[in-house]
Amino acid sequence: MNAVRQPDTDATPSTRDEAWFAARASRGVQGLKAYDPGHDLVAFRRRFGQSVLLELGSNENPYGPSPDARAAILDQLHSLHRYPDPLGADLKRALAAKHGADAKQILLGNGSHELLMQLAQVFAGAEDEVVFSRYGFAVFALATQAAGATMRIVPALGEDHPTMPLGHDLEAIGAAITDRTKLVYLANPNNPTGTWFGRAAFQTFMAKVPAHAIVVVDEAYAELADAGADVATALPLLASHSNLALTRTFSKAYGLAGLRVGYLIGAPGLVAVMERLRESFNVNGPALAACEAALGDVAHLQWARERNAEQRAALSGAFERRGLRVMPSQTNFVLVRFGPDTARIEAALTQRGVVLRPMGGYGLPEYLRVTVGTVDENRRLLAAVDDVLAEVRA
Amino acid sequence: MNAVRQPDTDATPSTRDEAWFAARASRGVQGLKAYDPGHDLVAFRRRFGQSVLLELGSNENPYGPSPDARAAILDQLHSLHRYPDPLGADLKRALAAKHGADAKQILLGNGSHELLMQLAQVFAGAEDEVVFSRYGFAVFALATQAAGATMRIVPALGEDHPTMPLGHDLEAIGAAITDRTKLVYLANPNNPTGTWFGRAAFQTFMAKVPAHAIVVVDEAYAELADAGADVATALPLLASHSNLALTRTFSKAYGLAGLRVGYLIGAPGLVAVMERLRESFNVNGPALAACEAALGDVAHLQWARERNAEQRAALSGAFERRGLRVMPSQTNFVLVRFGPDTARIEAALTQRGVVLRPMGGYGLPEYLRVTVGTVDENRRLLAAVDDVLAEVRA
Repeated sequence: MNAVRQPDTDATPSTRDEAWFAARASRGVQGLKAYDPGHDLVAFRRRFGQSVLLELGSNENPYGPSPDARAAILDQLHSLHRYPDPLGADLKRALAAKHGADAKQILLGNGSHELLMQLAQVFAGAEDEVVFSRYGFAVFALATQAAGATMRIVPALGEDHPTMPLGHDLEAIGAAITDRTKLVYLANPNNPTGTWFGRAAFQTFMAKVPAHAIVVVDEAYAELADAGADVATALPLLASHSNLALTRTFSKAYGLAGLRVGYLIGAPGLVAVMERLRESFNVNGPALAACEAALGDVAHLQWARERNAEQRAALSGAFERRGLRVMPSQTNFVLVRFGPDTARIEAALTQRGVVLRPMGGYGLPEYLRVTVGTVDENRRLLAAVDDVLAEVRA
Repeated sequence: MNAVRQPDTDATPSTRDEAWFAARASRGVQGLKAYDPGHDLVAFRRRFGQSVLLELGSNENPYGPSPDARAAILDQLHSLHRYPDPLGADLKRALAAKHGADAKQILLGNGSHELLMQLAQVFAGAEDEVVFSRYGFAVFALATQAAGATMRIVPALGEDHPTMPLGHDLEAIGAAITDRTKLVYLANPNNPTGTWFGRAAFQTFMAKVPAHAIVVVDEAYAELADAGADVATALPLLASHSNLALTRTFSKAYGLAGLRVGYLIGAPGLVAVMERLRESFNVNGPALAACEAALGDVAHLQWARERNAEQRAALSGAFERRGLRVMPSQTNFVLVRFGPDTARIEAALTQRGVVLRPMGGYGLPEYLRVTVGTVDENRRLLAAVDDVLAEVRA
């Protein structure tokens, strides 16, 4: 309690910039960069107006959520001054019933983003390694870096792989697991490639994973997949592998990206340890209520899934007819190769109020990720693409 | 990439319990306990009905939020499928204008709970110490433990201190700061004691704090204080002390506990480093919109503050007339000494549908924390207290 330093009068406020604070931050945070939101969509909405702007950059569900979700929020308006249920018990019960799991296997997150970050915070430290695929979901790298752990990025399958171009190479991922591996992040289907892996391949993979490595499969797009057993949800393997967990979200198929709700299903012991770190009210009141209501509207989900599959096929075909390579997808987006002019094409589309997702940050600068919109949105998108391609190729 | 262990067939799923996972968790999480929500309010609401149940345990604002906040949520119902603004730019601009700060000084959190946790995650590691007062806000200890740092808990002022019983002893807190101190958490006014410190004392304290220690003042109840310069917001000292930050919340005076929004104001450099760890959509869409709207309704805030001050005085007087010691408070709750029978009294009140906050977890088992309700709520509370005291003292 002694040896107190004198106030550091040289370090005036103006000299204490980001570098000053970063030098005092944890090793993980020292190496992190703040999230780059890319386009400022709020500014775009003001500039173009919401009826002109075509937002196809964030893999949102253009059909919106179940009307039951909106009604549940209306019911919450009289109790905004009350804290949410810290246990999220009703939503967990509904999720457990839906997935044939126990409520003790379910952890709620402020988006699956929070869960993926906290998995690394809890289980991966400075001496540990985290394994994931190149072109895997961007949060895997952020979570690993924030925890100060070492990233083991496994090369992806080739661009010309017949069924899984740029997808997870499960064999190589398995071979990258060492004694120091604490976590393995997979995504199925994967964002931003749209690729997926099937049940047999995943079972073979899991059979070889050593017990000390926790495998987390992000299944953010699982409800949109329609290839049956060829797309493997990790659900059936949870009973036999307690070092396996999966994450899901209400942001995609359920059309509730604005509410930030994700969940994890895993072993009760894993969930109990994660619960220690969870902030007591991490999912807010309207979000808990809306998600529970949305879960009950199976017909809406099915309808959105079918519209998406139909439009995904139509949009993929339309791009292919224009000579563009489209990666196979089991999600609500397609990864499209626009080639060496991609940056110019993207800029020209943006000028027309068409927002897609550039892939430079993922190391795929010749691609754009295109959310599958409604019939009308896709028609407007293709007209803008034709316009821009004619301009760029002129 | 070799030395892969064989699958651990002995560790069957059933043997991988919480202890198995905890042994693989970070040191900080190993020592953490999951949040204890105390009473299950959802179950109580079902048992008693919301018109009977008297919820005075969570320091919520019984008058609810500004009607403008509800209207802003209605406006969000058509865009629930869109991600929130990852920058929270509109809300930050409104907060900056309100506080005479720059938007770069403001960090948004999923409740101030998230911000207090992440401050320790970023700035306090295994070799570091975090200083705070006994009977300080409970999240200070959680944040320090989760980060794996050492807690330096400073004895509070005595129970019989004339103006700040059980409050922060700023002189002792200053003396506890060493070369290893990375963070100092203060709360002003403090939860659960209701105590506060004034401008002169805080200036004297800050003048002695060495530059390497970051001081964070949680001002969750600041908008409810009405003692003027005797309650020191840290705001005016931010310009001269870049190692000072404060946190505020929309959960108390603004009546929006259900939405989970808090914010930090501090040096732009500190905010920039914290932004690296912030999840891109940590505050959800309806919450951003409602808080911005609530900020604009100054009259509602003023009205709620006045009602609270009036009822706080009335309730304190009523408890004192019953021979109970009431700690002075600048918040929307009072800490009341019920004496050796506190546990029995609390249990009997709960049976009548009156929920107060037991203080055993804070090491104050002879006290209950009582939220100041409306005129009607306080009348019902006092009737129940009279009933229970007669029973216990009989």
